Amino acid sequence: MSQKTRGILSAGLLTAILAGGGCRNGGPVGGTGKEADAPASYSEISEALRSEGLRSENAYALLSDLVRVSGPRLAGSPGAAAAVEHMRRVMDELGFETWLEPTTVQHWVRGEETAEIVDRTGRIIDSLTISALGGSIPTPGSGGITARVIEVASFEELDACGSSVRDAAVFFNRPMDRTLMETFRAYGEAARFRTEGPSKAAGHGAAAALIRSVTPRIDDFPHTGMVGYDPAVAKIPAAAVSTEDAEKLSVSLKEDPGLRLRLRMSCANLDPVPSANVIGQIRGSDKPGEIVLLGGHLDSWDLGVGAHDDGAGCVQAVEALRLIQACGLKPRRTIRAVMFMNEEFGATGGLDYAAAPGRKNEKHIVAMESDRGGFLPLYFGVGGPPEARGKFAAHEEVFRSLGLSGIRAGGGGSDIGPIVRQGAVPMGFVPNGQTYFDLHHSGRDTLDKVHPRELELGAIVLALASYIASEEGI
Amino acid sequence: MSQKTRGILSAGLLTAILAGGGCRNGGPVGGTGKEADAPASYSEISEALRSEGLRSENAYALLSDLVRVSGPRLAGSPGAAAAVEHMRRVMDELGFETWLEPTTVQHWVRGEETAEIVDRTGRIIDSLTISALGGSIPTPGSGGITARVIEVASFEELDACGSSVRDAAVFFNRPMDRTLMETFRAYGEAARFRTEGPSKAAGHGAAAALIRSVTPRIDDFPHTGMVGYDPAVAKIPAAAVSTEDAEKLSVSLKEDPGLRLRLRMSCANLDPVPSANVIGQIRGSDKPGEIVLLGGHLDSWDLGVGAHDDGAGCVQAVEALRLIQACGLKPRRTIRAVMFMNEEFGATGGLDYAAAPGRKNEKHIVAMESDRGGFLPLYFGVGGPPEARGKFAAHEEVFRSLGLSGIRAGGGGSDIGPIVRQGAVPMGFVPNGQTYFDLHHSGRDTLDKVHPRELELGAIVLALASYIASEEGI
Repeated sequence: MSQKTRGILSAGLLTAILAGGGCRNGGPVGGTGKEADAPASYSEISEALRSEGLRSENAYALLSDLVRVSGPRLAGSPGAAAAVEHMRRVMDELGFETWLEPTTVQHWVRGEETAEIVDRTGRIIDSLTISALGGSIPTPGSGGITARVIEVASFEELDACGSSVRDAAVFFNRPMDRTLMETFRAYGEAARFRTEGPSKAAGHGAAAALIRSVTPRIDDFPHTGMVGYDPAVAKIPAAAVSTEDAEKLSVSLKEDPGLRLRLRMSCANLDPVPSANVIGQIRGSDKPGEIVLLGGHLDSWDLGVGAHDDGAGCVQAVEALRLIQACGLKPRRTIRAVMFMNEEFGATGGLDYAAAPGRKNEKHIVAMESDRGGFLPLYFGVGGPPEARGKFAAHEEVFRSLGLSGIRAGGGGSDIGPIVRQGAVPMGFVPNGQTYFDLHHSGRDTLDKVHPRELELGAIVLALASYIASEEGI
Repeated sequence: MSQKTRGILSAGLLTAILAGGGCRNGGPVGGTGKEADAPASYSEISEALRSEGLRSENAYALLSDLVRVSGPRLAGSPGAAAAVEHMRRVMDELGFETWLEPTTVQHWVRGEETAEIVDRTGRIIDSLTISALGGSIPTPGSGGITARVIEVASFEELDACGSSVRDAAVFFNRPMDRTLMETFRAYGEAARFRTEGPSKAAGHGAAAALIRSVTPRIDDFPHTGMVGYDPAVAKIPAAAVSTEDAEKLSVSLKEDPGLRLRLRMSCANLDPVPSANVIGQIRGSDKPGEIVLLGGHLDSWDLGVGAHDDGAGCVQAVEALRLIQACGLKPRRTIRAVMFMNEEFGATGGLDYAAAPGRKNEKHIVAMESDRGGFLPLYFGVGGPPEARGKFAAHEEVFRSLGLSGIRAGGGGSDIGPIVRQGAVPMGFVPNGQTYFDLHHSGRDTLDKVHPRELELGAIVLALASYIASEEGI
């Protein structure tokens, strides 16, 4: 259908929204007389979504409430459980259809953790700011591990160290390459040492692994993340060290290669616990069994409160639905917000969502994931066949009016991966990623790092994209 | 000339830069053997500029030094004078040709300033966070002004108030429209009340003017800026009030319209003082009389340290030259950094630069101004005839590789306005403007609000654009 004739939003409502009065929950306000019955174009709808969103900056209020109620939301933690209850209640109060779907999550807990540099006599030279990697085993006994330190910057260097690695602590000091424009690529290259490094070190007989935090900044925040133990070798304790201390340790080791690391960590892997994906939706008026999915992950790391990663993605999905509702739009297809559980610890939420019995009679036409932080949206990526991209590219000017540079190939994410494999077209806006890894997986991922306006812009473009998908189909 | 054959940067130097060793000041490093003599494409040059820039993040170091040395740099202040000496010294040390060009600046000083809300009996109800507008006259005597408060949100409302305005304080409480995507447009609409409001109020006989700070945020920072007195009416004292206190005052006035404002300000307009534009350049090897100008303004408001406005633009111009030099590039035309004085208080620096005797034998082909904050560059605007834009659009992919969405029509700025009127093509990158007015002209414009990487990206795109302009001409 043409852009000019689509949309339920009436000109009367549009006038009311643009006059600054905002939208009433649940339906059109005003709208009497002839103009009020004129259908709205996507351009007018975009204007209404933008006006209501930027006026209210409600996504930030949702995020503020979430992090206040839950604190950190490590999968299996009380914070994660509180977040599940809270987000369902928030969506109930907004009048969405809501439910929970079960998923079981690994339950790892952080304990005490200390790292000291000692000389050959056992005298403490310095302490390091560290953080156990998620899933790491603890150090043995109460004394922990004291071991020689072997610094490497690549797996090739590790291999070249030969038998000297035995019983040593391997210190992977590979900086994230900040000269790359694509910070996610630089992250991927450096994060390999966190995910694969510990087991590669263990394969050479190492006693522990210390990983330079995967961030381009030099500061004293450790950045954690999952360790990926290779089942073929023994597990060894693994921790991230702040970049400041990584630099310091590297200098110290050059001065005295005989220095030792004394590492104590009491983290533990407990029994898996039941948890849930949190779901809310606006049912489609015409084709309710066709689903447009908006998703983020509700779990976070424990060092901050996961404001950007991925509280932002969760509240943007909820806010996108709220904007659609507040502007009186009645989508033809169902628009569904899914807050996936456990992205950080195995992504079971995404797998269980795709495999759930409820999916049998549903067809997911589109899945959008926001999991790159609540920063300024730069462009929209659309995956799947070229025709899918064409559906949105036809309305590129409307996306441009929201500050995006346009529609490009792309889209995807770990939580929506399983449903995309069942046929959903992956989509998503790509935000400014230049500063994300400053705070990713660290104690800096807090509410004050999120800008209310930039966060809201993400919700607005998700609302527009999901509404167009619901009207046009794929 | 084709992209493949331009550029002095050799493949040998490129290899050295990309290997992470950085560039040596003043010329190519390495570069022996056959590959070393191969000319570099703009794509390779862009890669070298980006690599050196993002590795060093040197623009931030320059900015950090500037604000440490100068503090706030209000035109005519000791801070501004210190900034002039400092930036010239910095450019001397980098080996650029440097000089100062005189400009005379208005010298306004802020004094004590207080605003209280008192009831009819003179009892103090509340105090307001205010800041005198730049150029404002002081309040009379030691007691200041105590006056009824008339709140208006438009000039039409003011006109409708009639004779009640006489001897009152007019409170312009027009919020910046945060529902607009274009924050500079929203700023322009609201800033009219700051520039024109005081004299419009004075035209109705008002005794003082209080302006809601021009920012989309609700906080307790006043945002100052120039008052534009109309010579046809009496000058009255004028101040900005924080948005939090504007909201509070508005509520209080609804409860008790008889409340009075007691305003005391001891600001003063002193005699004009001599100051200077600071200039540094790399002389063109082939056409030194043709100039590619990069500019920012060195003066700032006094409430913060002008880190974004416009310390960022100044250090980006210097860093762009440094990057060109560090990568061993020898521009055909002269590339010149100009730190204009007095943008905030009448833009005399830009006027005097264009009118200076030194301009007689020069032809400015391009002028780029960075004065929208040191945020993520989004696209490059090129003004002038369409052919000028075409010169850069031909290399759009290279700009895209630096994260820009492309080349668009646009470009300009108040400091380069006079030289553009003499024929220079205006250009400039447009950065993310979504958060700029949070801090603009306020005490929040401090170094910690600037991100080293985003600031550097601006310098890198300026370096690339100015180098292309120097090679290709206009």
